[in-house]
Amino acid sequence: MIERRKPIWVKEATEKIMELKRRGEMEWVSIEECDGRFLAAPLIADHDVPPFDRSPYDGFAIRSCDTLSGSSKNPLQFEVVDEIGAGQVSMKHLQEFQAIRIMTGAAIPQGADAVIMLELVKEETSLDKKIITIKRKVNAGENISFQGEDAKKGQKLLEQGTMINPGVKALLATFGYHKVPVAKKPVIGVIATGSELLRVEEPLSPGKIRNSNGYMIESQIIKAGASVKKYENCADDLESLLAAVKSAMKECDIIITTGGVSVGDFDYLPEIYKQIGAEVLFNKIAMRPGSVTTVAKCENKLFFGLSGNPSACYVGFELYVRPIIRYWLYSNKPFLRKATAILNADFPKPNPFNRFVRGRLSYDNGRIFVEPVGLDKSNVVTSVAWADCLIVLPGGTRGYLNGDLVDILLLEDQSGSDEQWKEKRRSSKL
Amino acid sequence: MIERRKPIWVKEATEKIMELKRRGEMEWVSIEECDGRFLAAPLIADHDVPPFDRSPYDGFAIRSCDTLSGSSKNPLQFEVVDEIGAGQVSMKHLQEFQAIRIMTGAAIPQGADAVIMLELVKEETSLDKKIITIKRKVNAGENISFQGEDAKKGQKLLEQGTMINPGVKALLATFGYHKVPVAKKPVIGVIATGSELLRVEEPLSPGKIRNSNGYMIESQIIKAGASVKKYENCADDLESLLAAVKSAMKECDIIITTGGVSVGDFDYLPEIYKQIGAEVLFNKIAMRPGSVTTVAKCENKLFFGLSGNPSACYVGFELYVRPIIRYWLYSNKPFLRKATAILNADFPKPNPFNRFVRGRLSYDNGRIFVEPVGLDKSNVVTSVAWADCLIVLPGGTRGYLNGDLVDILLLEDQSGSDEQWKEKRRSSKL
Repeated sequence: MIERRKPIWVKEATEKIMELKRRGEMEWVSIEECDGRFLAAPLIADHDVPPFDRSPYDGFAIRSCDTLSGSSKNPLQFEVVDEIGAGQVSMKHLQEFQAIRIMTGAAIPQGADAVIMLELVKEETSLDKKIITIKRKVNAGENISFQGEDAKKGQKLLEQGTMINPGVKALLATFGYHKVPVAKKPVIGVIATGSELLRVEEPLSPGKIRNSNGYMIESQIIKAGASVKKYENCADDLESLLAAVKSAMKECDIIITTGGVSVGDFDYLPEIYKQIGAEVLFNKIAMRPGSVTTVAKCENKLFFGLSGNPSACYVGFELYVRPIIRYWLYSNKPFLRKATAILNADFPKPNPFNRFVRGRLSYDNGRIFVEPVGLDKSNVVTSVAWADCLIVLPGGTRGYLNGDLVDILLLEDQSGSDEQWKEKRRSSKL
Repeated sequence: MIERRKPIWVKEATEKIMELKRRGEMEWVSIEECDGRFLAAPLIADHDVPPFDRSPYDGFAIRSCDTLSGSSKNPLQFEVVDEIGAGQVSMKHLQEFQAIRIMTGAAIPQGADAVIMLELVKEETSLDKKIITIKRKVNAGENISFQGEDAKKGQKLLEQGTMINPGVKALLATFGYHKVPVAKKPVIGVIATGSELLRVEEPLSPGKIRNSNGYMIESQIIKAGASVKKYENCADDLESLLAAVKSAMKECDIIITTGGVSVGDFDYLPEIYKQIGAEVLFNKIAMRPGSVTTVAKCENKLFFGLSGNPSACYVGFELYVRPIIRYWLYSNKPFLRKATAILNADFPKPNPFNRFVRGRLSYDNGRIFVEPVGLDKSNVVTSVAWADCLIVLPGGTRGYLNGDLVDILLLEDQSGSDEQWKEKRRSSKL
């Protein structure tokens, strides 16, 4: 008995899922441990950066008006009246033809409006006085880093949902975040089904392959910014699968299963959904690979039923699970970043479906090229290891040629997009 | 007394450092904990993938020769003689007009050379026999995933030094790596100098700023794949700095200091290098920011003296420290990945030095554009938080205009490059 499933568009599938999006809780972590976490609030400057006018170089703070007539033919002498290191503040107020020795990062003293670099002056001591000679005109403001030129108090510097990388961490430190408000990671339960699956440490045996999907998905979850809770590999056995699903419902925010979603006799997920009373949002999407991607909800929890085939599983996760995770992590750009690239290979076969082909980028002369990697089959695993993008080939065409412009989705980019790739001209029938 | 330093080219600085490159040790970690680590050996397929001919769909395995005359006008009947789930192997050898029900992933039975999808047949039971009706010709090899089509035994699938991401992890699982050979992380000691530096939890006070460099560098180290050992913030005090450096020499593989490398009176690093007997490889590079980047070696350890200015420190790390770390982690592409992009802004000021400007990429119609972010000053911190690339503007030009093609270095890319950006036309004088 075969169930005839009705596929829906990528656009619709995305909308149905994103209706159920929600934000995670916020938690505070030490700045020492915030790498790779996601800001739960925008970062707003609570003071000017720099907080005071300061010197970007080692040199002498002077009054520019004193240098107006300076030249190699008319050297000018200044008396050095103080010396300030970084972190120090001079008590002196600079007078005519006075200078203050100033180190990189130190605050510009009162009265001064320029700095001349150490290398450009001659220093000498005369009658117990330190004297410098300047042979040029110095402009007002020269070699001063002005208060607020880097960031102004009140300025929004980073959006919520930004992943914390070295530059972000530098800003957090600048603004005194020894504790950082980040999104609490959602816990994603992973249940890999399939009686053909060996554990990774088992030797190969006839008809069986090792469970690679489970590890791949765990890694995708970690990369997306969530944490993993793994449930014992269920053979294709209804009772054990049901038990795992029930535990996961209690312990996890989102549940992913891999395999068991096809229409075959041994694919139990539809039955599981029935038994737990889950509402199936859809069980087929007009795309390859990953057409069997099934999404259900039960008691406010989302269930993602991904394909048991590695490429299909991978694509299903990146298109549908990742956005839910990134939104949870406070991002307003939870989808994969989009770009267009020039196809570097022919793809001649007619394309009834939207295809998401694993590809690899290259750059030349200001242009981006992309070519498919590995075999374009849903059960292929090498292509996933070699890919840094997905090439989107919309359905309803006679194929694609070398040189065609195609949409791509970037797998290694963290900035994201505020919308999913979607079908542009939606035909009325599927 | 001012030391006149002789700058060297980026190319030379890189060569001097890379002469001292070495590989780290290998260690075995559980596949559960290998995310983001780096392969210490190439990944070579030790068996074909798939390991046997298998079915990519639920359906019926048949002999294609039996279907030659099949059509909607000439439906053909096959007897279903067995049923195999994924992971099972049929003991039957298929005879004329026999079929075996086969699930996704199961091994193709003996005698069969094609699979017809479940949706394309009619099933019925007649006189206790299961019968299917096929109304088309099926080609030999149709719907079979052939042994080795994904990867061939002996094929090198991934280079050593590859960062482990979800796809790589899937391949590791496929080939049974429950323990994964990865590069042991080098331990990088970090000593941030500068008496203007407040700890992150301290309130601002006149003339002082918080230590952002230390946190940024730690994050860069983690992102590059190494681990951090942090030494107490030294004020600009020779004795305490010397003590920290001596401890770091014992406990770390590589030592980074930030600040203290200028020619100012309070910059103690040159003195430290002298006291420990380090050989200074260079102390000035013809580039902005980061010209003060100093590299020394002592007892087989590398000392990177990075600028105390955030942008300069950041660039110095990415150009000179990261390659040493990535080579240590077995990569043969330890440098930042290069590309060319179209400049999306004017940069009119004359450019005596090679500039590495913090920039941000955008994509349009198969082309890459780049524009500078934040202020292009070495002491700016926001630009580092906003950048996803460095724009390289070689020195000796009158500036750059909107639309010019420029080299860029990608900060978020993990694939790397086998060579550093370097000056193309090297002029004889500096």
